[in-house]
This record gives sequence, structure tokens and C-alpha cells, in this order.
Amino acid sequence: MTTTDTKARRSVYLFGPRRTDGSADMKELLGGKGANLAAMAALGLPVPPGCTITTDVCTAFYDNGRRLPDTVRAGVLAALDEIGKDVGAVFGDPDRPLLVSVRSGARASMPGMMDTILNLGLNDRTVEGLAARSGNARFAYDSYRRFIQMYADVVLGVDHSHFEDILENHKNLNGFSLDTDLEADDWRTVIAEYKAVIEAENGAPFPQDTAEQIWGAVTAVFGSWQNARAITYRRLHDIPDAWGTAVTIQAMVFGNMGSTSATGVAFTRNPSTGANELYGEFLVNAQGEDVVAGIRTPQPLTEIARQEAGETAPSLEALMPTVFGELRGIFDSLERGYRDMQDIEFTIQEGKLWMLQTRSGKRTTAAAFKIAVDLVAEGVLTREEAVMRVEPSALDQLLHPTIDPDAEKHVVATGLPASPGAASGEIVFDSDEAEALKSQGREVILVRIETSPEDIHGMHAAAGILTTRGGMTSHAAVVARGMGRPCVCGASALKIDMAAGTMTAGGEVFRKGDLITLDGAAGQVLKGTVAMRQPELSGDFATIMGWADALRTMGVRANADTPTDAATALSFGAEGIGLCRTEHMFFEESRILAVREMICSADEAGRRKALAKILPMQRSDFEQLFEIMGERPVTIRLLDPPLHEFLPHEAREAAVVAKALGITPEKLKARITELHEFNPMLGFRGCRLAIRYPEITEMQARAIFEAAIAAARKTGKAVTPEVMIPLVAYRAEYDLLANVIRDTARTVEAETGAKLTYLIGTMIELPRAALKAAEIASGETGAEFFSFGTNDLTQTCLGLSRDDAAPILASYQEKQIFEVDPFVSIDVDGVGELVSIGTERGRSVKPSLKIGICGEHGGDPRSVAFCHEIGLDYVSCSPFRVPVARLAAAQAAIQKGMSARDKD
Amino acid sequence: MTTTDTKARRSVYLFGPRRTDGSADMKELLGGKGANLAAMAALGLPVPPGCTITTDVCTAFYDNGRRLPDTVRAGVLAALDEIGKDVGAVFGDPDRPLLVSVRSGARASMPGMMDTILNLGLNDRTVEGLAARSGNARFAYDSYRRFIQMYADVVLGVDHSHFEDILENHKNLNGFSLDTDLEADDWRTVIAEYKAVIEAENGAPFPQDTAEQIWGAVTAVFGSWQNARAITYRRLHDIPDAWGTAVTIQAMVFGNMGSTSATGVAFTRNPSTGANELYGEFLVNAQGEDVVAGIRTPQPLTEIARQEAGETAPSLEALMPTVFGELRGIFDSLERGYRDMQDIEFTIQEGKLWMLQTRSGKRTTAAAFKIAVDLVAEGVLTREEAVMRVEPSALDQLLHPTIDPDAEKHVVATGLPASPGAASGEIVFDSDEAEALKSQGREVILVRIETSPEDIHGMHAAAGILTTRGGMTSHAAVVARGMGRPCVCGASALKIDMAAGTMTAGGEVFRKGDLITLDGAAGQVLKGTVAMRQPELSGDFATIMGWADALRTMGVRANADTPTDAATALSFGAEGIGLCRTEHMFFEESRILAVREMICSADEAGRRKALAKILPMQRSDFEQLFEIMGERPVTIRLLDPPLHEFLPHEAREAAVVAKALGITPEKLKARITELHEFNPMLGFRGCRLAIRYPEITEMQARAIFEAAIAAARKTGKAVTPEVMIPLVAYRAEYDLLANVIRDTARTVEAETGAKLTYLIGTMIELPRAALKAAEIASGETGAEFFSFGTNDLTQTCLGLSRDDAAPILASYQEKQIFEVDPFVSIDVDGVGELVSIGTERGRSVKPSLKIGICGEHGGDPRSVAFCHEIGLDYVSCSPFRVPVARLAAAQAAIQKGMSARDKD
Repeated sequence: MTTTDTKARRSVYLFGPRRTDGSADMKELLGGKGANLAAMAALGLPVPPGCTITTDVCTAFYDNGRRLPDTVRAGVLAALDEIGKDVGAVFGDPDRPLLVSVRSGARASMPGMMDTILNLGLNDRTVEGLAARSGNARFAYDSYRRFIQMYADVVLGVDHSHFEDILENHKNLNGFSLDTDLEADDWRTVIAEYKAVIEAENGAPFPQDTAEQIWGAVTAVFGSWQNARAITYRRLHDIPDAWGTAVTIQAMVFGNMGSTSATGVAFTRNPSTGANELYGEFLVNAQGEDVVAGIRTPQPLTEIARQEAGETAPSLEALMPTVFGELRGIFDSLERGYRDMQDIEFTIQEGKLWMLQTRSGKRTTAAAFKIAVDLVAEGVLTREEAVMRVEPSALDQLLHPTIDPDAEKHVVATGLPASPGAASGEIVFDSDEAEALKSQGREVILVRIETSPEDIHGMHAAAGILTTRGGMTSHAAVVARGMGRPCVCGASALKIDMAAGTMTAGGEVFRKGDLITLDGAAGQVLKGTVAMRQPELSGDFATIMGWADALRTMGVRANADTPTDAATALSFGAEGIGLCRTEHMFFEESRILAVREMICSADEAGRRKALAKILPMQRSDFEQLFEIMGERPVTIRLLDPPLHEFLPHEAREAAVVAKALGITPEKLKARITELHEFNPMLGFRGCRLAIRYPEITEMQARAIFEAAIAAARKTGKAVTPEVMIPLVAYRAEYDLLANVIRDTARTVEAETGAKLTYLIGTMIELPRAALKAAEIASGETGAEFFSFGTNDLTQTCLGLSRDDAAPILASYQEKQIFEVDPFVSIDVDGVGELVSIGTERGRSVKPSLKIGICGEHGGDPRSVAFCHEIGLDYVSCSPFRVPVARLAAAQAAIQKGMSARDKD
Repeated sequence: MTTTDTKARRSVYLFGPRRTDGSADMKELLGGKGANLAAMAALGLPVPPGCTITTDVCTAFYDNGRRLPDTVRAGVLAALDEIGKDVGAVFGDPDRPLLVSVRSGARASMPGMMDTILNLGLNDRTVEGLAARSGNARFAYDSYRRFIQMYADVVLGVDHSHFEDILENHKNLNGFSLDTDLEADDWRTVIAEYKAVIEAENGAPFPQDTAEQIWGAVTAVFGSWQNARAITYRRLHDIPDAWGTAVTIQAMVFGNMGSTSATGVAFTRNPSTGANELYGEFLVNAQGEDVVAGIRTPQPLTEIARQEAGETAPSLEALMPTVFGELRGIFDSLERGYRDMQDIEFTIQEGKLWMLQTRSGKRTTAAAFKIAVDLVAEGVLTREEAVMRVEPSALDQLLHPTIDPDAEKHVVATGLPASPGAASGEIVFDSDEAEALKSQGREVILVRIETSPEDIHGMHAAAGILTTRGGMTSHAAVVARGMGRPCVCGASALKIDMAAGTMTAGGEVFRKGDLITLDGAAGQVLKGTVAMRQPELSGDFATIMGWADALRTMGVRANADTPTDAATALSFGAEGIGLCRTEHMFFEESRILAVREMICSADEAGRRKALAKILPMQRSDFEQLFEIMGERPVTIRLLDPPLHEFLPHEAREAAVVAKALGITPEKLKARITELHEFNPMLGFRGCRLAIRYPEITEMQARAIFEAAIAAARKTGKAVTPEVMIPLVAYRAEYDLLANVIRDTARTVEAETGAKLTYLIGTMIELPRAALKAAEIASGETGAEFFSFGTNDLTQTCLGLSRDDAAPILASYQEKQIFEVDPFVSIDVDGVGELVSIGTERGRSVKPSLKIGICGEHGGDPRSVAFCHEIGLDYVSCSPFRVPVARLAAAQAAIQKGMSARDKD
């Protein structure tokens, strides 16, 4: 036992052969690295002893203006005493110097983002001790210069080019080509020059006091939590800023002490395929950084791998069979201990094996499925655990073609990764042209400043969509995800000149017909065509998804507007349609004229005449949907967008339309002007359209009900449509339209003699609707289901237009105002509270109320977890996100079950 | 006592000489008329006996598909028995028939909006009894035919033109010119023809069963609650639909039974001036409807009035001195009893006085002030009661010129009554021209499709503003109210042709320079100039406002952007500025170029250069404001509108601006395009601007602080600016800008050696901000005050753009989806809940948090009452609404005190 006081001990956790304070489940406090080292030490594995300064200290460090608390200093010094005892050395002792590494280690792995210092504890005196004890002066001075170089760079902020210049100069002067050509005396000379440049640059000599060294290093590593690289990485990986990093100080071991020394990395299974085979490589007489640096080619660990690779250099299995055997045993016990494939670093110092790190290994999505399924078969994992092991957002990789990671890429511009997948094709700037070229069998990329509902056919024809404006939930993004098309949005560096038919990026001009490739997952626009990998859905995928389906309690539906969408949704495991947007049907070429006629009619009679033309087309749409979906629920939203979206926007087109409608261009223009709005998002749309023109709802309800009857007769299955009224804020709005729908149902029943079963419900997409949910749902005539339209609810709750949000979102994420784009992952604090309020109030008057969400958030794992948490009945998302939602819903159910058990 | 069962008795309340069930305070249940008749009967006044069917029955009537509950029928029949006993008659009895009137009577007076039936109980047999008992067959048959005519029209729906034709025909055939020329036999003939046409039109004979008559009449009167007239009236007067009407059945008395009979109406004081003098008129040998119909000229009640009017026909005082004396006594006791000026109807039947109705009399606003002050002086009212007697919204009448009610008007078009007052002037279509003409001393009306911030100077120059688009809170409306200019908005029937310089309304073409008049209170556009009345603020006004100020507990501030606004606000009694919109200062001709330079700068250095030019101008604005306001609080909102509002919108202007800025027109156009937004309301504005360009906040904070120091030095008063950050949704936004403001304050303090005191706070105008109020206010660095921006909060909570709302609001009010425009009076259920939540949560972490509202609702009496109810510290409204808010705040305080006492 040490004499460290209790306060300090809580800041510093020891690990080593004699005493280990931490354990594997203390990642929050000790970081991943610290917790895993403690775990390995506790298992009795050969781990160089050390200690970990907690993440709490990191928080205190920043709270105190980047200063290390004094109690921590005492704790660290006490720990260094203990570590020294384990290895028979003393920190700062000239004869038996203890050398340590100082490394960061956050709760989540952030490889290479923060700083590391090796060989700390060396100074002009201890280097002599190291030389004497190792009997290798060259090694000792090489270690010292490496330390000085790293320390100067990381702690003192001296540019590393100075050191490179000095070394290069020395090698040139002496005719050396490799670092290994330098002897101890060479390094002494180099070190003297290093120290001189440090004093000149830094105004103070290189610190000889090893205590000063350790405080400098610890302060620098904590400080690196807030370097630009780390901040960016956290933003990209949704790692909260508040977590902080731990710092681990560990006795150094050396893989570069001759031919019986080595260093290596290994995965306990193949991280690429998931196959249960040892996978790794090593270098003789090298330090860990040499393996990573790629200067020498590492050798495979196993004989099999060596043979498969046709490698002549011996495997570790052949070279050091004893150590290899020990290593294999450790691998097995680590995998069993952690119950997961491990990513391991080890060093062999003069024949003795040291374990430096173990952690769950990163893997491809395919490997994740295979490993999880195998571990269940091996009896290591339960099905629940296996389901928890696959990252839902990684499924996108599996469901879409992706850019070959080895392919050469020329990035032309970067935008938002709006819809995953990759596609190559010719540039087209016009939707009609996209359709025409596609019909000739050519692959095209539709390039637009932004898209509108009039581009649907072009987007459908295109292999990928690129816009220069708009965010993750812009029209282009939403539609592309729904269609499963790769899409890059808001690539604002691109300038499109429609008239000239060119797109310019950083001085490079692309013309119509030029080939480009979109990487929708990375948000990149690439020049030419690029090699891709096709998705492969393995049997393991189906196995895990089957388990997930059995484990989840929340339903998963798809947003699907067309029979194609519906069929795709079913193939991805959707249990129903949560949102069928009827307006998409209105934009089809054959229908738009009748829709425009309706909009331009002077009176109800005129509108009814036009609606009568639309009725059979709309009915046939619904009939096909119902036939595909059978008894599964289908939620159909009544007409939602502002009417001006259906009218032509360009003068030339307007003239053609006016002629077709038999009205003067002036009259058409007048109607367009009349319908113009400053803020269409907050304008004449949703139920407001039908409050003014109830005959639209009447037509749509009739189409739905007639189609339901026809489909039921054809398939023999009971069809129960769910008719959804959009943009309700007042119960009276709901009642007015619900009455129209019910009246229409009665009329259709009377006409056909059939008996209809159906539900009427509403989107909850305005704050007022969430607040008044009890009123909207109350009573027999109240809403029978709610579907939270979290896209619009986010726009109104935050006062942020998704079409205009892109530049705002960028600066907000950069300034850490929010951690994730609220249009991608639900803003739990704000929008989430409205969803909770709406759910509670709705169910308070109608416990049976069916509640789901149908915004873009329905396919986002975090948001799915939130929906499960507050007890929604289902989520609905675009067809390609259905597997993501199924898996996320299962994980949410498992997690909730686990935390419930934890509480017991 | 009757035998009526308890259930029925609760639906029907008797009044009369022997028994009265109701009282004056039962208006909710018995309606105004029923409660007042009961009160008069209880006072022992000569009221014809009757009964009132409650408003609950009206509700039940509509709930049961417009059917009268059976229990009510039993109650009414029992009541008719009692009424008959009082007057010695029996309902339906051929010898001693009881005749009754059936009238509506809602909680609030709705004169003439619902139906009335008189003389009910007459049929072919009872008419003979009436003739025999009255000894006046002519009277009896005339009464019968009047009844038939009224009943057929109201209950049976037979067009009244049929009856007019028959009567006209009969008079022509017999050479009669007046109705009084017809004798009993004539009426018999007419009656036969009346009955024939009813049977022909209605398919059934006129009902002879008096019970059938009474059910028909009661049903029709209840039904008239939902006629179009009544619905419109309720909408205009904010009377809830759910109140329903009561129905009063009362024994008939007749003022048309010869020269000792008469009928009249009276006010106990002059309703026009408020003078304490009996005011009224009467007709001998006439029924009440004759007085109203205006066929004969009524005579004055008093001798003084007769002499003043130079009338020769005798006064009632002279003609029937005994009755007059009785009447004067009753008037006094009614005024004392009701403690208010009364509007009274009476009938004299053969020398006997009958009181038919009393109610608080309608009066002009000036009269309301005088009567209230006089009644306090007379010891009738307390000051609290006097303050309650003036309708705050009626103050507008007093504060602005109004159209002379007697003037002849030619209404050209109707829009929204966006800003009160009236003005005449020449039509101009352009703001620059408005300014130019005004500078020549000409009065102009600015006519625009809509206005934008660029029109401020034109609006200021104009005597009135007319737009064809936009709602009650459109830019034009808000600015006009702030400036006190009359404004008619959204007059959509007007077509403006800018190019031609014409405005067309219903075929009539108006050109630039043509004279029109706006009636801002009525929302009317009138042709030519129209006579007006100038506002007169009497001493009574000051008296009541003084009482109100002493009684209210909530502060009243003004929204004021300029020194002129601030001075006006002070003169109207504002206690501070609750909202100074800094952007209005940016639009001034001398500054806009620097603002545009700032917006078009490529980098921060360029922006800072432009901001340096704006700084002295902005500082001088604030200095003037602070000098005027002295120690009173001044809340200054940082720049809020989207930047594109500051850029030129037309190509021609853009070219000029580009030249002035020294950039290419292409570059300016590119910046305009870049800043274009689909939904600017939800876009790059508010604090989002300053998050991206913190140097704007820095400049504004510096201008505020330097001005505060300068003004304090000049006036010797402590200036405490309140700096307000707009459109906050996240605490992090608030912190980023609050830090800029605090840093700037420290810098200015260091530079000047002065010590600043100031507050930093935020608008709460997004649902998320209301929900996260605790987070935003918490801690020392959290917001120190909140100001609810209820305009934007309404837009986001309801998802309704105020600029686009006009057509939606119209159809929503028509369809009774909401009772009042939510932009005029706060939507208590939805927006109000967010304000409550924000207030509670903010104060939960900071009990001292100062909270107000600064939306347009701050000047709306209902909204002011709501703000008082939830405990806000102040409301802020446009200067001209300040007296309205002061009065409303006092009334809210009094009302809350009263209801608190009621609960004790």
C-alpha cells in the first residue's frame, strides 16, 4: 500500500502486477485505454505497470483554466514510486531510471487525435544510467533524442522541422542514409544541437527535472483534448465535449533492444471479413511507431497467413514459438474476457512478452455481423448482446454501393452526406434531360442548385443527385434518401451556370456530359468514375435482423409514396407504411395539368371538374399500394404542400401551361402571384388547403376508400387505411376535415354496399398541436392516431427552415452550439419535449391512441432510441433506412431492459 | 308555488309580481334581458310577468340536433300557467287569451341579430276573445296579422315579401295609404290571404294550436343563435359561440291601444356626452317596433329636451305627467340599482306604465369616461369600478382622428383594420415620392402591395398606409401602429398596377394623385375626402388613467425605435422602452450604404471597416433615446432581420448600389442570391447573424455603452441599458453573444473610466427557448431578463407566417376555427402555454428574472390581462397603445383582486 492520501488516490488509479485499482467497466473514469490496461493487469497478463489520471481531472483541469490540481501531482508522484518498485527503478534516479510513456485515452477511441509522449524520465544523467543498465548506449541516446524531439513538439510547441533538419544535416555530413547508421556519439551530438535549438526557440533550456517533464507532458495531453483535430473528430463521431480524456502513465518497454525484441499489433479475428482467424503483424527490433509508420514491411504473425500471403520473412509463430504460444493464449483469454474480437498491441523486450493495449477492434459492417453471429454460436454472447454489437448507422454501408476505399480519388468539392451510396454518371442540369438520357440507357448525375417537386422524375432517372444548396433535410436530401439514391447536398463551393451548362469547382470547369462520381456517405464529389464495392447482404445479416425483430417492441414502417417504394420497403422488412405523401402522385406528367386546372379554377364547380379527372388516377395509386401492403397498415397523408409548388415557375413554361388550361397567361400569372408566399413553410398548406377547398379532401378520401374496397376484393385481405390530416393546430381544423372524410366514407359505403374500416388521425408537426394533443384526441370523434412530423416540428420549434439551414448548421456545429444536426437526430431537449408532451397528453384522454413518427428522424438510431424511450408505437422512415430502424429499435428495447434490470 | 318538477324548474326561471326566480347576476344563465327583467321584477317595478329559458337549454338544444328537451316543454307550460294567473288570462283560452312575446337574450347584448316574435297566442278563436276584452276589434286583428306575418317569416321561413304584397294590394284596392286606414274587417281579409299563402308555401296551414306556436317560436329563437348575422356579430365582438342565448317569454303589453297608450326608449344619461340628463323619446299609440322603424318621428321625453330641440309635439313630461314622474323615479332607482347608466324600454298601456327592458347603455368612449368619473363623484362607484367601466379597446377612438359617423361615405374596398385613425390624401405608389410630396406640404396615402423596411421613410411621410396584402401583423400594420398612422391592410380586392400607376377596385380606376380616405378602425378605403372628428382628451380621461395607474401592478412600456417614438410614448404614459429595434436605424438613407458595405464585405476586416462608419450614427441614436428616457429602462434589441432585407431588390437600384460600394453588379447580385432564403422568417436572422459575425454585436454593444455614458454625463441620471439578444433557442447562443457584450462593456469601461450598469437578456420567441427557459436563465451569466416576442412565438407555435396569414385568417374566423386573430390577441391555449412555461421555468432558476412581452399583443387588452394573470412584470406596445395597455393592466389587477376575494 502507498501513503497517497485518499483525495489524490481518487484521481489516480494504479495498475500492475502487485496492485490494480481499476477495472474494465471504468471506461468513463479511466478512458478506454486505462480501463483495458487495468483489466489486463487484473487478469494477471504481463502489462507494464502504470497509472491512469481520471477524466474527472480533465474536467477539473479545464474548469481551472488548464491547470493541474495540486492533489493530482501528489497522487502521480506516489504512483510513480509504486510503478518504480514493480520494475526495480526510480523516477529520476540516475542509476536505475524509470522511463514512462504518457498517453491520452478517452471513453471512446479517438485514434491519433491527441498527443503521446514516450521515454519520459530521460535527462542528461538518467540517459547514462539507461546506457549502463541496458548495456546499449546507442539505444539509450536514440531513446533520449526521440524523447526530446517528441517533448519539444508536443509540450514546448517547438516546430518539429527543426529536429528533422538537424538530423538530416548530421546524416549528410557523415554520409549516413538510415537512422540506424548513427552510433551513440552521433546521437550525443544531435542531442546537443536539439537542446540548443530548444533553448533558442523556447527561451529556456530543455527541462532536466523529470518532475517538470511529467507535469509538462500531462498538461499537454489533457490540453490536446481541445486541439482542432480532436474537436473535429468528436464532431464527426458525435462524441460529447464534456467527456474529457484520461491520461495513462506507463513504464516503458522496448521492442528495439535487439533481435530478441519485437513489437506488433493483432486482431483476434479478421476485421475485414469477421473470420475466426488470428490476424496481425510484427517487426523485429522495432518500436510500436515503426509498425504504424510503414517504413519497414511488417511480417505476419501466423504461418498460415505467411503462406497465404506468399511472404518469405518468417512468421512470429516460426521465429519465436514460445512467445507466440503465450500470445495466442492471451488472445484467447482476452477475447473470452471481453467477449468480443480484440485489437491488441504488444511488445517483446529481450524475449519477454508485454501487453500494451487491448480494445474491441474496429471492423467492417459485414465482419460485425459475422463476428456477432459466431460469438452467439460459440456460446460467448446472448442474442441480445449480439444485436447490441452492430452499429445501426453502419448498415448504410451494407445497403448501398460504396466507393472502393483503395480507389484513387480526385475530390472536386465537398458537401453534406445527404444520402448514402455511390454512383457515377454524366452531368445533367435538367430533370427532363435526365429522364431522356436515362431512357437511352445512360447513367446520369442530376446537378441542380436545389431541387423541387418538379424534379422528381429527374431524380428518379438519375443515378445520383448533387445540389449546391440545402441541408440534410432539403427536398433533394429527403427525396434521394427515400429513393435510395446517393446524394450530396449543399456543395456550396460549386458554382452552376445553368445558361452555359457548366459547373465550376475551384477553377475546374465541368460541362454537361462530363463524368463525375458522388460519394453520398462522405459528401464528396469526385472527378470521373471511381471503383466501387457492391453491397452484399450475408446470411449473418438476416440472422441478426431476425433476432432484432424478435427483441424489439416498437414497430417499424416506411415512408413510401409509390408501389416501387412500397415493394422496396417490404423487402427491407417494413411492417406498414407510416407516411404516403399523396402530393408526389400529383406531380406526375400525366396528372399535373389536371392539378393545375384545379388550382386555377375560379370556383368550386371548376375545381370539382378538375378533381374528377384526378380521382381515377389517385384511386389507382392507392389500389396498387393496398395490394402490395395487404393487411399491413397504410397511413395516407392528405395533400400537404403549398399550391404554388404545382404551378410553373418559368415564363416559357407558364405560356405552355396557360394554353393547355385554356386561360390567358395573365390569368395564370395572377394566380401564381396570388399564391406567392414570403414563408411558404408557414403558409397556405396542409389542412389549411382543405379547410378552404374541402372538395380536395373529399376526392382524396373517395380515392382511398374506393381503392381499399377494390384491393380488398382482389386480394381477399382486410384493408384498413389510416387517413392522416396534416398541419393541424386546432381541434376545429381536425373536426372539419374528419367530418368530410367520414361523410365520404358513408357515401362510398352506400354506393358500393361494402363496409369500410379505417382510422382518421393527424400529423403532430406544430408546437401548438403537441400542446393541444389532449383536445385533438379527445372523444370518439377525436384523432385515432398521431404521427409526429418531426421535420416540421423541428423547423417550428427551433424557428429554423431546413431549406435555409445549411450555412447556419455549419457554423453552429463548429461553435458547438449543438452537437448533432437537429434535422438528422432529434433535438431531444426541445423538439423531444414537445413529442413527449404530445404523447402524454394524447394518451391521457385516449390510452389506445396509436402514435408514431414519420419525420426523417425515424431512420436515425438515436432518435429511434428516444421514440422507444417515450413509448411510441412505431417509427416510419425511408425504405432504405428500415433495417437501421429495426436494429436501433431492438437495441433501444434491450438497453431499456438492461437499465431496468440495473435498477432492480 | 307551481307544481313544476325540479328538473324543469332549473331550465325555466319565472319573473313577475308574485314570484321571481332569477336575479341581476344571473346573466350567464338567463342572458342579459332575462336577468335584468328578473331584477326589475324583484325590485317591485311594473314588469309584465314572464319566464326565461336558460342558456343551458340552448346548449342542450344544439347538442340534441336542434331539438327542445321534453322537460323544458313541461317547464314552459307550467310557467305560462303562472304568467296567466298574474295577468288574469290563460294561454290558448278563447275568452281570456294570454298573449306573449318570445325573445332572445344572450349574455352580451347582440341587438337585432336574433329573432323575436310578438303577440304569440293568437289564433282564429283567441283573436275574438282579445277583441271582446279590449273592446277594440281593429287592434285585435291588427295584432293577429302582425303575429302571423312575424311567425311565418321567423318560424316557417315564408318570405315576408308575400305579406307585403298582399297588404299593399289590399291598400291599393281600397285606396288606403296608411296601415292605420285599415279596419277590423280589412285585417280579417288580409289575414285570410296571409293564411292562404302560408299554406301554399309551407304545405301546412298556419298553426292554430297555441302550444305548437310556442314550441315553434322557442325553437326558432334558439336557432337564430346560429344565423349568419349572429355569427358575424359574435366574430366582430369576440363573443364566444359556446355562450348560447336564453329565451324570454313575456306577457304582451300594448302601447298601441289608443291615446293613453305609448311606447318609448330612454337613456338615464346622455350616451353621447355622458352628461347627467334624461335622454329619450316616445310615440303615442304605437308598438316598440314603430319607434325603431322611424316611420313616425318620436317625441322627446322631457320638456327641456323638447325646448332645446325646438320640437312642437308635447313631451311625455307634459303629456302624461303622472306616468313621467313614475318613470323618472324608476330611472333613478334603476341607475342606483345597477350603478350604471341604463338603456330602458317601456310601454304605457291605457295609462299604466310597464317596464320592458333595462340594460347598461352603450356610450361613446368620451361618455364612458365622464359617466364613470361622475358616478365616483356621486358616491355610486368606487375608483376600481370606474376603471372597470371603460373598454380599453375603445380608447383608440379617443387617441386618433375618426371618420365623422354622420359623413357620407363611398366605400371603395375593405381590408383589415390594421391601425386605427383616419386620414385623407393623394394616392402615391412609391415611398420616395411620398417623402418628396410630403416635403412639399402635401398629404399622401401610401398605397403598396406590401411594405418592406425600405418603405419606412415613405410610411413616415404618409398620412395613411394602404396595402393589398398582409395581415394584422404584417410589416405595414406593425410599423403603422407604431407610428400611429392609420392603416388598412390586405385589401385584396384592390388591384395595383405599379407600371401604370393605377389602383383598381370593382371596376373603378384610381390614379396617382387621386384623393382617398382610409378608415383604419373600420378597415375601409373611401373615395375622396371625408369629414373627420379630431380626438379630444378630456380631463375625465386623465382622471381615470390616473386611477388606473394607481391600481395596476404591471408595468407598461412602449416599443420605440426613434426619439420621436420615445417622446410620444412618454406623453402617453410609458414607463420605459420595452423594445427598441435597432435595425430601423439601419435603413435610414444616410446609413444604408455602410450597412450594405458591411453585408457585402468579403471578410471580417471589411465588415469592421463598414461597422466603424455605422458606430457613431448608432451611438447618437441611442444617446438621444437615453436622454429622453432618463432613468427609465430602455431595452435595445440587437440586429434581427435577415441581411437580404437591407440589399436592393430591383436591378436598377442594384446597379447604383454596386457602383456606390465599388463592387461589380455581378458580385452584388451573387451576394443577394446567396442571402436569398425560402423562409426568411426561419432563416439567417436574429442571434444567428451575430453568431456568424460577432463584430456586429460588438459594434452595437459599444454604441449602446458609449451612448449610456454620454447620456448619463449630460443628464446626470443613471442610465441602465437592457441589451436584448434576439431569436435565442440554445443557451450556447446566448452565452457566445453575452460574452461579446460583456467584453465590450469592460473595454468601454477601461477606455472611458466610467462604470457601466446594464442588463443582458433575451427575447423568448421560439418554442424551444420557452421550453429551455431554465437553462437560458440559470446562473450568474444566464439571462437577466426575458422579453416574450409573441409575434414570432405565434408564428412558430402555430406554424403560420404573419405575412402570409391574411387569407387563412379570414377563412378561419369565418369557419370559427378561432374566435380572434391570434396575431391580435394572444392564443392563450397554445402560445400562452409557452409563455407560461417560459415564465415558470425562467423564474424557477432565477426568481428575480424580469419578464415582459414586446409583441404586438402588448397593446391588446385580453392579452394584457393574460400577462397580468401569469405574473409578467410589464407589457410593451406601440406608443399609441400605451393608454390601452395601462387601462387593461389596471382592469386585470382589479379583476384578479375581485376573483381572489370571491374565492375567500
